[in-house]
Amino acid sequence: MANDAFTALAHPLRRRIVERLSGGVATVGEATSDLGVSKPTISRHLKMLEEAGVVTRVIDGRTHRLALRVDTLAAAEEWIKAQRSRWEALFDVVGQYLAERKDER
Amino acid sequence: MANDAFTALAHPLRRRIVERLSGGVATVGEATSDLGVSKPTISRHLKMLEEAGVVTRVIDGRTHRLALRVDTLAAAEEWIKAQRSRWEALFDVVGQYLAERKDER
Repeated sequence: MANDAFTALAHPLRRRIVERLSGGVATVGEATSDLGVSKPTISRHLKMLEEAGVVTRVIDGRTHRLALRVDTLAAAEEWIKAQRSRWEALFDVVGQYLAERKDER
Repeated sequence: MANDAFTALAHPLRRRIVERLSGGVATVGEATSDLGVSKPTISRHLKMLEEAGVVTRVIDGRTHRLALRVDTLAAAEEWIKAQRSRWEALFDVVGQYLAERKDER
């Protein structure tokens, strides 16, 4: 599932591209200019983002536009949230138990 | 920041360990038994989880216990949420604009 999403988000350059796209659909040039890396490097990172389903590319003649795929981001976010919530719920139970013990005294 | 957290979560075996630990503090044996991989492989994956700050290890004599670091998980979750929310807010604005245009007609 979110395996590829986490892999896609694991590189700072790919996260910068996602941060730029979160502001709206952008051309490849708009989303990747001033990143200080070569075009082949950009292409490789974009390919990883697309294959992971984090970014989608719409081709309109010569113009390639990139958009975020919010469903993929939401799935990765939900997985982390589920683990964190389960852990935190556990400590709520421990806290409640200790509070109740305190009341009994 | 969450660079290492995403890298740590990018492997299914490491995610399974996190899922087990979300149920509470566990010994290395409890958290990693039945994963069908060798001990050196387990050690390597645990090291990555610890170095990324996703898991912490408490050593009590011969017993090594593992716990989740909810702050690291929360930071990674928040980063994804920030990108998703920014993107979604944009489409709320577009939707509102279209709804208002419709009202005007």
